[in-house]
Amino acid sequence: MALLERAQALEAAGHDILHLEVGEPDFPCAAPIMDAARRALDRGQTRYTPAAGLPALREAIARDYRDRLGASVSPAQVVVTPGASGALQLIMGALLNAGDEVLLCDPGYPCNRQFVTLFGGVPRPLPLRPEDGFRLTADTLEAAWTERTRVAMVASPDNPTGNRTDGAGLARLARDCRARGGTLVVDEIYQGLCYGAPADTVLRHGDEAVVINSFSKYFGMTGWRLGWLVAPQAWVPAIERLAQNWFLAPSTVAQHAAMAAFGEESLAIAEQRRQLLDRRRTLLMEALPGMGLPVVGGAEGAFYLYLDVSAHTDDSFAFCRDLLERTGVALTPGLDFGAHHHPERYLRLAYTCEESRLHEALERLRAYLERP
Amino acid sequence: MALLERAQALEAAGHDILHLEVGEPDFPCAAPIMDAARRALDRGQTRYTPAAGLPALREAIARDYRDRLGASVSPAQVVVTPGASGALQLIMGALLNAGDEVLLCDPGYPCNRQFVTLFGGVPRPLPLRPEDGFRLTADTLEAAWTERTRVAMVASPDNPTGNRTDGAGLARLARDCRARGGTLVVDEIYQGLCYGAPADTVLRHGDEAVVINSFSKYFGMTGWRLGWLVAPQAWVPAIERLAQNWFLAPSTVAQHAAMAAFGEESLAIAEQRRQLLDRRRTLLMEALPGMGLPVVGGAEGAFYLYLDVSAHTDDSFAFCRDLLERTGVALTPGLDFGAHHHPERYLRLAYTCEESRLHEALERLRAYLERP
Repeated sequence: MALLERAQALEAAGHDILHLEVGEPDFPCAAPIMDAARRALDRGQTRYTPAAGLPALREAIARDYRDRLGASVSPAQVVVTPGASGALQLIMGALLNAGDEVLLCDPGYPCNRQFVTLFGGVPRPLPLRPEDGFRLTADTLEAAWTERTRVAMVASPDNPTGNRTDGAGLARLARDCRARGGTLVVDEIYQGLCYGAPADTVLRHGDEAVVINSFSKYFGMTGWRLGWLVAPQAWVPAIERLAQNWFLAPSTVAQHAAMAAFGEESLAIAEQRRQLLDRRRTLLMEALPGMGLPVVGGAEGAFYLYLDVSAHTDDSFAFCRDLLERTGVALTPGLDFGAHHHPERYLRLAYTCEESRLHEALERLRAYLERP
Repeated sequence: MALLERAQALEAAGHDILHLEVGEPDFPCAAPIMDAARRALDRGQTRYTPAAGLPALREAIARDYRDRLGASVSPAQVVVTPGASGALQLIMGALLNAGDEVLLCDPGYPCNRQFVTLFGGVPRPLPLRPEDGFRLTADTLEAAWTERTRVAMVASPDNPTGNRTDGAGLARLARDCRARGGTLVVDEIYQGLCYGAPADTVLRHGDEAVVINSFSKYFGMTGWRLGWLVAPQAWVPAIERLAQNWFLAPSTVAQHAAMAAFGEESLAIAEQRRQLLDRRRTLLMEALPGMGLPVVGGAEGAFYLYLDVSAHTDDSFAFCRDLLERTGVALTPGLDFGAHHHPERYLRLAYTCEESRLHEALERLRAYLERP
C-alpha cells in the first residue's frame, strides 16, 4: 500500500511508472456490455431490483455454468452481489459466529481476512508450502483444521501465485471440510483466465463448496462493482435477507449490463483478451528465469506471476522500494500476501499492461539487476 | 414484509394493487443524470475509482452543502459510499466495539439495527412519545443514555413520521452526545424533501454530528446505489481504509451520473418533484383526518404519513392485512417501525404514486371504513 502510494506520487511528479502492481487489467469494458448498459438507461431501468438480483441475471449465470462449464447450478442457488466483496460479506455473515476460525491461504489475497474479522471470526493461516508450489493440499488443510474452524477459503485461479487447482481436487477438499462440519469457500473470481487448460469450477464436481465470483476480472467490469455467489439452495433465503438488510440490492444498471456478458460476442472478446494475457505471460516466463527471477507457483491463471527474488535480495519489500525509486517499475512484495514460508523472498508481478510496456519493464529490470 | 409479499402475489394474480407501502418514488431518474451516465459510458469511465469516491464528486457534494444549504463542509470530510447502506456500515464499523450500545428511534427505520448488530453492537430503543409528536427530545435522549452508549441515531426528515427536526436542535443534541463521550449520527437521506420550510442540515449548525445521505430519494437514483457520509476530517482516513477493504470503491458510472445531480437543471427537476409530493401530501392530509385517520407526527418531510388508526382497530397489522385482501390498498403497519408506545395503533402511508392513484386509494379506504 505504501509502495502503491509512492508509485502514484512519482507518476504525479512526471515519472514514467510501469505499473506491474495493479490488479486491474488495462482492457476497456467490452462493447456489448456497454451497449447493454446504454439500453438499460434508454429504458429507464434504474430502480431497485430484488435483493438477490434480477431473476433474469440469476438465470443467465446458472445457464452459463451449464453451457460453458458443464456444471449444474440452479438460479435459486445464485445471489447477485455488489462485487465479490458483497459476496464475501454475505457468506461470512451467514456462516460465522464470533470466535469461529477461518482458514485463509498464505500466501493469499489479503482483504479476505477483513470479512472474517467483520463478524468476530478469527483468521488463521493455511501455510502453503513452496515445495507444493504454494498449492493447498489435503494434508495442509487437515493440519490447520481445529475444532473452532468453520470455513476454509481457497482461490482458483489464485492471487498471487496464479495457481489453478482442478475442480475435482477442490471438490474433494470441499467434502473433507463438510465431513469436519465446515465449509470450503472457493474464490473463482479469476475463472476463465486460465492458460493451458480450460476453465473449471468446483461446482462441476459436487455441491459441497460455496463459490464466489465476479464480473470484474474475466468480463472487465471492475468499476461496475458486480459479483455473485453460489450456495446450497437451502441457505439462500437467509443470505437473501442479509443482502436485503445490508445492501438493499446490487446496482440495477450494472445488472442489466452484465446480462450481455454471457453473449457470444462478449465471450469472444473475453477469449481474445485471455489470449493476449497468455502471450504476455509467455513473454515474461521466457525472460524472467534467465534474469535470476524464477517463477514459483503454477502461473496457470489470473494475471499474476509470483517470483522468487532471493537470488538478489533477502528483503523483497526493500527490493521493490528501491526498484521503484531507481527504475519506475512497480511490483508488489510478498509480505502483502502472507507471513509464512519467507514472503520476503517473493514478489508479485501483475501483467495488466500491454506487451510494449512489459518489454520496457524487463529492460529496466535487467539493467537494475546487472548494475555494478 | 409478509404484507409486501402478499401485495406482490395479489398483483401477480391480476389484482389492481395500490402501492402505498413502497419507499421508492415513482419518478424516473432525471434526464441530466441519465445523460451524465451516458457520457461516462461513452468515455469508457468504468474502472475502479478511489475507495472514498471520485475527488470531483466529493468536491461537488461539499460545494452543494455550501451553495444550497449554507453549511461549511470540506471535501476531505466526505466519503462516497455504495448507498446510504454503505455509509451506515462504515460509520458503525468506525465507531463500535462489541457490546457498545446504539440508541435508535422508535418508531424508526428498521434496517438501522442490522448495522449495529453487524459489529456486535447492541441496539437500544429511543422511545419517542406520541405527545412529543414522535420527535426526539433532549430529555428522551438523556433518559435512554447509559455508560455503554456510544452512538445515537436520528433521521430528519424521518421515516415513518415525516418529522423534520431543525438543524440547530439536532446540533444541540449532537453536542449533548459528544459531551457524554458519544456521537450523534443524523440520517439526512430525505434531505431536500421538506414541505413548508427549507431543507436544512445539522452541519450548518456545528460539526459534532456525523451525517449520512444518499442520491436515492431526493435525486431519484435508487437503483444506482450511491450515498455518502460526512464525518470529522480526522476520522476519514480510518473510514477510507474500511471502505477499501469492504467495498473497494462505489460504482464508477453511478458516481459520474451523480456529478450531474447538483446541476441547475437536475435541481429544478428535483424541486418540481418536491412540489408534486407536497400536493399529494396536502391532498391526503385534507382527506384522512375526516375519515377517522388523524396524521400523527409532523409530516413535514420525506413522503410518509404516520396515521393513527386506533378509531377503527386495536391491531393495525390485522387492519392492513384485511384492507389489502378486501381493497388492494397496501399500507405498512406500525409494528414494522418499533415496539414502544403502541405501534399497533399506527400505520404508515407512502405517497409514492401519482394523485389519481391516491384518489382511488382514498375511495377504497373510505368504502372499507364505512362498510356495515
